[in-house]
Amino acid sequence: MSEVVSEGSIVLLVIDRKRRFLIRVERGRVLGTDKGYVNHEDLIGLEYGSIVKTSQGHRAIVLKPMPYDYIHGYRRVTQVIYPKDAAYMIYMSGIGPGSIVVEGGVGTGYLTTCLARVVGESGAVYGYEVREDFLNAAIENLALAGLLNRVKLKLKDVREGVDEEGVDAVFLDIPDPWNAIESLYKALKPSHPLLTYVPTINQVEKTVLALRRHGGYCDVRAAELMLREISVEEGATRPAQISVTHTGYVVYARKTLRK
Amino acid sequence: MSEVVSEGSIVLLVIDRKRRFLIRVERGRVLGTDKGYVNHEDLIGLEYGSIVKTSQGHRAIVLKPMPYDYIHGYRRVTQVIYPKDAAYMIYMSGIGPGSIVVEGGVGTGYLTTCLARVVGESGAVYGYEVREDFLNAAIENLALAGLLNRVKLKLKDVREGVDEEGVDAVFLDIPDPWNAIESLYKALKPSHPLLTYVPTINQVEKTVLALRRHGGYCDVRAAELMLREISVEEGATRPAQISVTHTGYVVYARKTLRK
Amino acid sequence: MSEVVSEGSIVLLVIDRKRRFLIRVERGRVLGTDKGYVNHEDLIGLEYGSIVKTSQGHRAIVLKPMPYDYIHGYRRVTQVIYPKDAAYMIYMSGIGPGSIVVEGGVGTGYLTTCLARVVGESGAVYGYEVREDFLNAAIENLALAGLLNRVKLKLKDVREGVDEEGVDAVFLDIPDPWNAIESLYKALKPSHPLLTYVPTINQVEKTVLALRRHGGYCDVRAAELMLREISVEEGATRPAQISVTHTGYVVYARKTLRK
Amino acid sequence: MSEVVSEGSIVLLVIDRKRRFLIRVERGRVLGTDKGYVNHEDLIGLEYGSIVKTSQGHRAIVLKPMPYDYIHGYRRVTQVIYPKDAAYMIYMSGIGPGSIVVEGGVGTGYLTTCLARVVGESGAVYGYEVREDFLNAAIENLALAGLLNRVKLKLKDVREGVDEEGVDAVFLDIPDPWNAIESLYKALKPSHPLLTYVPTINQVEKTVLALRRHGGYCDVRAAELMLREISVEEGATRPAQISVTHTGYVVYARKTLRK
Repeated sequence: MSEVVSEGSIVLLVIDRKRRFLIRVERGRVLGTDKGYVNHEDLIGLEYGSIVKTSQGHRAIVLKPMPYDYIHGYRRVTQVIYPKDAAYMIYMSGIGPGSIVVEGGVGTGYLTTCLARVVGESGAVYGYEVREDFLNAAIENLALAGLLNRVKLKLKDVREGVDEEGVDAVFLDIPDPWNAIESLYKALKPSHPLLTYVPTINQVEKTVLALRRHGGYCDVRAAELMLREISVEEGATRPAQISVTHTGYVVYARKTLRK
Repeated sequence: MSEVVSEGSIVLLVIDRKRRFLIRVERGRVLGTDKGYVNHEDLIGLEYGSIVKTSQGHRAIVLKPMPYDYIHGYRRVTQVIYPKDAAYMIYMSGIGPGSIVVEGGVGTGYLTTCLARVVGESGAVYGYEVREDFLNAAIENLALAGLLNRVKLKLKDVREGVDEEGVDAVFLDIPDPWNAIESLYKALKPSHPLLTYVPTINQVEKTVLALRRHGGYCDVRAAELMLREISVEEGATRPAQISVTHTGYVVYARKTLRK
Repeated sequence: MSEVVSEGSIVLLVIDRKRRFLIRVERGRVLGTDKGYVNHEDLIGLEYGSIVKTSQGHRAIVLKPMPYDYIHGYRRVTQVIYPKDAAYMIYMSGIGPGSIVVEGGVGTGYLTTCLARVVGESGAVYGYEVREDFLNAAIENLALAGLLNRVKLKLKDVREGVDEEGVDAVFLDIPDPWNAIESLYKALKPSHPLLTYVPTINQVEKTVLALRRHGGYCDVRAAELMLREISVEEGATRPAQISVTHTGYVVYARKTLRK
Repeated sequence: MSEVVSEGSIVLLVIDRKRRFLIRVERGRVLGTDKGYVNHEDLIGLEYGSIVKTSQGHRAIVLKPMPYDYIHGYRRVTQVIYPKDAAYMIYMSGIGPGSIVVEGGVGTGYLTTCLARVVGESGAVYGYEVREDFLNAAIENLALAGLLNRVKLKLKDVREGVDEEGVDAVFLDIPDPWNAIESLYKALKPSHPLLTYVPTINQVEKTVLALRRHGGYCDVRAAELMLREISVEEGATRPAQISVTHTGYVVYARKTLRK
């Protein structure tokens, strides 16, 4: 049962909360950090969960990456959707093994990675992106995560039409989701949801109003999620004092048959 | 591609935000609500996403339930984990198709339902519960959702030992998680996470301190998620004025090899 | 030093969090509640802070009202500004004894009461209100609080001009604050602030943009205050589970000389 | 009515949100900033609200400081209570012109400054502080604000007894407020409140339980205030993305007669 690091393995090295490094292990390479370096070679043969020391004597934990850990190795070309928001969108989408998903606005491909994990080998993610540089970064990133086989990335505008039909859920991260509502309506299975992420309240208003007016969506809702870490010390526990206070809003709707 | 309601189908009937009914369609039965009744028979043959009228003329949308919709048909014997919290726990767990999961404190079986959806047919959820009445409710509820085949529910105390080894993630919803830390450590795969849900800050403190002292966990964190719905009206958008302001905290940790 | 209730005293009777009654003590009158009644006469001669029993045996504490307690005796004709918001507006206004204040949109007169308390006998509050029924309620309410002598209430539209000049602060609670910006600019002393309360985010945007464009305001800011009560039980402390999650936003700006 | 800067005036110079300088104007002195310098002399004779240019051409607004602006000129020896919290505490205290106030834990003297402003010349603030270095800083700071005449600062421990009686409100910012509850009970007028500020949830629990057990307090409550600034841009308005997420909790109670 014990899994062991070998040449080519993808490893997450964690020194502390801020120092998390995702590497592909290659003999002869060195990971340099401000807390000292680690020779890749020294990781080979170690069980995941092992603890090594950097050249400066700091502990580094050798972890097998979860899907969301890949962000630490990704080439980032856009702001990515935060875990709290991605988590809620995926949950509300109801997707699981075998689901067929459309994503509009792939960007860096972080949400795509998480979606690909959830749908599994029997599912598929169709990702639309209008910027070629973003698309190339996403392809590179998903290759690192080993998930390209479940993902079809297209240099296409989701607002101008979607090739797929009967999809289980749609995820949208574009500046003007209201312009994609009709093309995504055609793609979705009845009962199934559209999940949109937008950073400003003006976009929330426009998106919700457009969904209500469309006539083919029900259960239209918008919500904001706030996450506060708790700083625990014995007898002196309190919420974190400075942190992210706003990322974006999630807009949810479910397809009905149009009257 | 169009799916149709037949006798025995599980249907979510949505009249409005508060009136959501999960029913198993049976000829001759009637769903009674304060907005009028609906004959089950009238649903048979309808495509999901259709809209029917109650006897009082109110619109009711015929939806195919998502996993989280089952709560509207479940016999509830405990407070269930809210969607925002369940979503975050599942996401951070990194589980997907084929994962093997242990759940301590099954209660009503709502989180179990969502976990079973995520792991799919090739995965498994092992649920521990010390109260027989809760266990029976959970079995009944999971049978309604058609997910009993992926779930093994046991009348056992997760704090006293777990039968499984090499599990991909552990979910815990018991009053004293600190007492289960060692038994779950043995069950978990290295690198893999423990997700705990507790309602009070005192439990957060105790759990985090116990995880830190144990020596076999890293990345120990606690967080609170707050969700605020946005009430959208053209030119008069604002957050919801009264709502749930606290449910509980999520404590996260990942297994390392013990020194 | 000990203060004693006499005929005509205003008393706050507190049975519990929800049962708070502000009465003017009159011999022969009875306060009836769902927890029993209290004869006014029985309060006469008691020291403030005393505890009496209702006819049903419940404890009722005899308190001397603070300014904000008057809300429990006021005839309410509008939604009032919540304590958290009123507190922040008053604080940021920098007013104190002797200050001259203009209030646009008096409504029920609750904020007016708090302002009158702060400016004291040497200060003055000039309140503008366009609805006569609101103005009459406010007059009645401020008379109850014994503060009418420091307050001048006018049946006038603050947007159409303000009679006062060189005022220390302006408080605004009207639907379209952007239409009052110029008339209030003329009233304010340079350096001194305008505090606006608006319930929707659209109003925030319009007000802030109008203040920025006006050219005679600096330090323009908008903020939302959220208050969560903490439910304390030994070993089981947590935030309140359901409560008010949104009231409104405060917009702040300070007058500069116009270029 | 127009007020003019003269030698010796205290002026708040505002370049932007982060660059706020409180100076006492002295001929021959220069205010140096990373956005250029300003000769004090150039401010003399200007009306408050005027705009000057720094040597680098940046606008600097010449404002008359509000009480809370003094923090920008204060020597800071402790963490100060944030405006949102100070505002709420002062409001709930019900104090105004002429009030007699006790403050336990003066620290830098920021809250003291605000209290002195509110009680006015006819009121008084009695401040207790156990650290001589803090007390000296507070004296220096209050002298800058010109408020020392209303404030009596004592090198004494508020937990060991308070010299005053019949005070209108008590403010407490010490690590162990539960140890001061009895001495402050004696100082307070019946009906009047105790306002405590504590940074951790453990302190909230201990303080509230001690107040409940004491028997001489009613209306015991604890709350947390969160403030989120709103970032306004036309069509792109949203809450601030990173900010302070926790400062402390406010515990409130009112004195009753003890049975």
